[in-house]
Amino acid sequence: MSTQPTRDLEAFPNPNPERDYEIRFECPEFTTLCPKTGQPDFATLRIRYVPNELCVELKSLKLYLWAFRDEGHFHEAVTNRVLDDLLALLAPRRMTVVGEFNVRGGIRTVVEATFP
Amino acid sequence: MSTQPTRDLEAFPNPNPERDYEIRFECPEFTTLCPKTGQPDFATLRIRYVPNELCVELKSLKLYLWAFRDEGHFHEAVTNRVLDDLLALLAPRRMTVVGEFNVRGGIRTVVEATFP
Amino acid sequence: MSTQPTRDLEAFPNPNPERDYEIRFECPEFTTLCPKTGQPDFATLRIRYVPNELCVELKSLKLYLWAFRDEGHFHEAVTNRVLDDLLALLAPRRMTVVGEFNVRGGIRTVVEATFP
Amino acid sequence: MSTQPTRDLEAFPNPNPERDYEIRFECPEFTTLCPKTGQPDFATLRIRYVPNELCVELKSLKLYLWAFRDEGHFHEAVTNRVLDDLLALLAPRRMTVVGEFNVRGGIRTVVEATFP
Amino acid sequence: MSTQPTRDLEAFPNPNPERDYEIRFECPEFTTLCPKTGQPDFATLRIRYVPNELCVELKSLKLYLWAFRDEGHFHEAVTNRVLDDLLALLAPRRMTVVGEFNVRGGIRTVVEATFP
Amino acid sequence: MSTQPTRDLEAFPNPNPERDYEIRFECPEFTTLCPKTGQPDFATLRIRYVPNELCVELKSLKLYLWAFRDEGHFHEAVTNRVLDDLLALLAPRRMTVVGEFNVRGGIRTVVEATFP
Amino acid sequence: MSTQPTRDLEAFPNPNPERDYEIRFECPEFTTLCPKTGQPDFATLRIRYVPNELCVELKSLKLYLWAFRDEGHFHEAVTNRVLDDLLALLAPRRMTVVGEFNVRGGIRTVVEATFP
Amino acid sequence: MSTQPTRDLEAFPNPNPERDYEIRFECPEFTTLCPKTGQPDFATLRIRYVPNELCVELKSLKLYLWAFRDEGHFHEAVTNRVLDDLLALLAPRRMTVVGEFNVRGGIRTVVEATFP
Amino acid sequence: MSTQPTRDLEAFPNPNPERDYEIRFECPEFTTLCPKTGQPDFATLRIRYVPNELCVELKSLKLYLWAFRDEGHFHEAVTNRVLDDLLALLAPRRMTVVGEFNVRGGIRTVVEATFP
Amino acid sequence: MSTQPTRDLEAFPNPNPERDYEIRFECPEFTTLCPKTGQPDFATLRIRYVPNELCVELKSLKLYLWAFRDEGHFHEAVTNRVLDDLLALLAPRRMTVVGEFNVRGGIRTVVEATFP
Repeated sequence: MSTQPTRDLEAFPNPNPERDYEIRFECPEFTTLCPKTGQPDFATLRIRYVPNELCVELKSLKLYLWAFRDEGHFHEAVTNRVLDDLLALLAPRRMTVVGEFNVRGGIRTVVEATFP
Repeated sequence: MSTQPTRDLEAFPNPNPERDYEIRFECPEFTTLCPKTGQPDFATLRIRYVPNELCVELKSLKLYLWAFRDEGHFHEAVTNRVLDDLLALLAPRRMTVVGEFNVRGGIRTVVEATFP
Repeated sequence: MSTQPTRDLEAFPNPNPERDYEIRFECPEFTTLCPKTGQPDFATLRIRYVPNELCVELKSLKLYLWAFRDEGHFHEAVTNRVLDDLLALLAPRRMTVVGEFNVRGGIRTVVEATFP
Repeated sequence: MSTQPTRDLEAFPNPNPERDYEIRFECPEFTTLCPKTGQPDFATLRIRYVPNELCVELKSLKLYLWAFRDEGHFHEAVTNRVLDDLLALLAPRRMTVVGEFNVRGGIRTVVEATFP
Repeated sequence: MSTQPTRDLEAFPNPNPERDYEIRFECPEFTTLCPKTGQPDFATLRIRYVPNELCVELKSLKLYLWAFRDEGHFHEAVTNRVLDDLLALLAPRRMTVVGEFNVRGGIRTVVEATFP
Repeated sequence: MSTQPTRDLEAFPNPNPERDYEIRFECPEFTTLCPKTGQPDFATLRIRYVPNELCVELKSLKLYLWAFRDEGHFHEAVTNRVLDDLLALLAPRRMTVVGEFNVRGGIRTVVEATFP
Repeated sequence: MSTQPTRDLEAFPNPNPERDYEIRFECPEFTTLCPKTGQPDFATLRIRYVPNELCVELKSLKLYLWAFRDEGHFHEAVTNRVLDDLLALLAPRRMTVVGEFNVRGGIRTVVEATFP
Repeated sequence: MSTQPTRDLEAFPNPNPERDYEIRFECPEFTTLCPKTGQPDFATLRIRYVPNELCVELKSLKLYLWAFRDEGHFHEAVTNRVLDDLLALLAPRRMTVVGEFNVRGGIRTVVEATFP
Repeated sequence: MSTQPTRDLEAFPNPNPERDYEIRFECPEFTTLCPKTGQPDFATLRIRYVPNELCVELKSLKLYLWAFRDEGHFHEAVTNRVLDDLLALLAPRRMTVVGEFNVRGGIRTVVEATFP
Repeated sequence: MSTQPTRDLEAFPNPNPERDYEIRFECPEFTTLCPKTGQPDFATLRIRYVPNELCVELKSLKLYLWAFRDEGHFHEAVTNRVLDDLLALLAPRRMTVVGEFNVRGGIRTVVEATFP
């Protein structure tokens, strides 16, 4: 099984598609680079969704988040990007992605994006 | 009274069926095996329900949860399974089961399933 | 003034009956016996209500809760019992009783009953 | 400027009367006497309101709360009294007063009164 | 890039204007002077908004808040002022500013203003 | 196995008498009666000791603490009493008993007794 | 039994004078007046001591602390005063009094005095 | 690499044997069976040591702790057993093992064993 | 009474010079400017000391700390400076000053200086 | 001023070399790669030291820690490496480096190394 950073998110069939239920992930190990200064940014990502036909596979999610490590991303854009990528993969009934970014300039930033 | 793991959940008559009220259980000692790797998983299960004619007996709930100890279960499926088993036993007015699973791969997973 | 355990809850006239307002009690010193094993159970009772014409007197509430000390009660039934006794005394506009019972068999139980 | 306990609450014109916004005060230094026993009672008062034409001046609020120090007051009545006094002064759009009283007889009491 | 206190808030185009999502800032380093006594006041400002066409740039927000350091401002007025300035810059879909001011005279004050 | 309150503490042979190691118990369900007023008192008992030849059996400790439920005891005396009883049973190398009693008259009391 | 504020601290014989053990009191309801401004001050007093022949009676301690309510006292002096009064009553083996005073002028003050 | 439970702890050479430094592990996923009742017990193990020539390999420690899952062990004995096994493997300069076991019969047990 | 920032610390005679006791101040409202960038820095200062003949007056301490507001100071130097100024004023038996500075560049800095 | 990751730690003269005082840094944004699997590891580094002639410059420390981001390091070795590098730069009187690494395989690891 590959352990390289990758954008290839994997899904598996929802074992209980007849029921609306919620899956939540807390990912405190998300890091990117600041597109302006090139310096590292750190965040906790929180993802929650109600699956439709597909669920995201946990290990592929880990490798997907790892793939942002050496890229430059703004806080607002990267939170929406993760939401868009997961929506494209899963077509869930509902989904929210929250990015909680560490203090920069004495200010802590949180971005929360929701579908629909 | 038996103290072997068992799927035989027991119920007793709801002492106040004329009233909608809620019963909540917090079970921090839930453990199963990962179906892929065979390694132990650990979770806190939270169960809450509004009983109809029947309430679940506390000791039988403990033995029921114990019965998952040596079996392989995915996070999403086992949370729905506990909900299904309790719905079949109790036919409650409302019920929610939440599984809060320990960190794997730097990510913490929570699954929450509700009837109806 | 008596300081014996007693079921004689006392009430006093609501000083502000023209207004809906809420009174909340947190009672961490509630103890009964398990009806099956005879062993002590411990709970925090939380009571909140919107009074109508009457308020419950605090010291009589303390003595009333004390009266459960040497009696056997199931978690579900005793929580509803406290609600019923207070409803009979006060005829409040709204009332909730929550019993938070200590861990037994690795499981923590909470019962919450509400009128109406 | 006087620093004696006083019932003379002072108000100043709301700087933003065109907007509904909320002001909250947390006052952990509220003390009265028990009307039955004469012994001191202690509470944290929480006040929140949406001002209309007037806001309460902070120092006069401090002196007003101080004026209860040597008086006997029941928990339920004094919480409603503070609400009534502030309503009479400010005629706010909305207001809530919460009194969180220290443990007496093993029981903690909270009273919450709201206008309208 | 300037690092002087300044009222010149800067904005950048919302990267995802097609979606309602929320941005939150926690700014624990806000300080002004009391207009009555000239003494320093300290607050944590919390800002959250749903952007429309524009987002506020983080560094300019820091410099903007810094500009209040040597000015006299009342709690109620300055919280509304920050809201007004950000509304004028961003024309957001929704916005809330909360000012949590340190204890003065034994009382802690919070002001919360929302658009619309 | 008996489940009656009893003073008959039971011991078992220390499995590692060649090594100084510490055993700690936290017992949040300790209750007695006030010898003056007859009203219930509640405490958390903390016991820690370095065993010599004997260890105290956990269930007998539970039944032993239960035996205080209907007796009158002062805070200072009962904490020393538990220490004395355990010293007589175990002859440990070191032992400390701490009684943390709930608030009475606005004051929380802790008693800590140590051997030697 | 009197329930007036009083300086008459009462003692009772130490039930275990042969052993060094510690008694600790946490008293969060201590209030005096500022000798300069006459305004109320609030503190949590923490008292811990190793009794010799005498222990302080809990209710008399409550009434003793109450007697400071209408008097002017500086933080440093009143903490030492409580220590001196208790030393005179009890002649303990060791004693510490800590006064934790609420924020004044943005500064929180703690005074800790120990015998010997 | 095997992922079966195993007693085969693995060590690697201490990269800095010239310096006394401490390594600490927190293992919240330790579970065994009660030797009396056969029911599951749960604990957090805390291990800290100053290595000499060898350090314990993290994955082999995980598999070693897993090997206790289906065995009966008393709290006191199993904590000393883990210490003994690690001492035999590593011959460290200092080592402590702490087992923090979940509540049974209303009592929480902690065992702490240290070398030398 | 002046309320301008000032370096004129005032002292008063220690009311209990015959006893070693400790006075502690927590000052969460300390702010200076960074000497390199001119931007504001924020810290909580903690001061504790055993007075000899003199105690520092609380209000003058507040005005003294205020006087750093518009000056440039490095973390290490300003913490030692406050210690030096208080030593010169009070000649205490012991004194410690701790400066806990807010996060800059993702790093939080604490400086602790002690006499003697 | 460069903002590239770099091993070039910079020092400045200790402003108070005549006094032993302590400087502490908390660095929650430390990340490296696992030398075995290549996957990211995350840690909070805590550094505390008593400077002799030199203090480490904060921004260069940030860039130094950043330089570990794309390198493989074992927990034990990297904590000692940071200590060695800082010792070589500063020749401090005392220094401790603590690495608190995120959970891997259900186990959290902390390494603490001290000079001398």
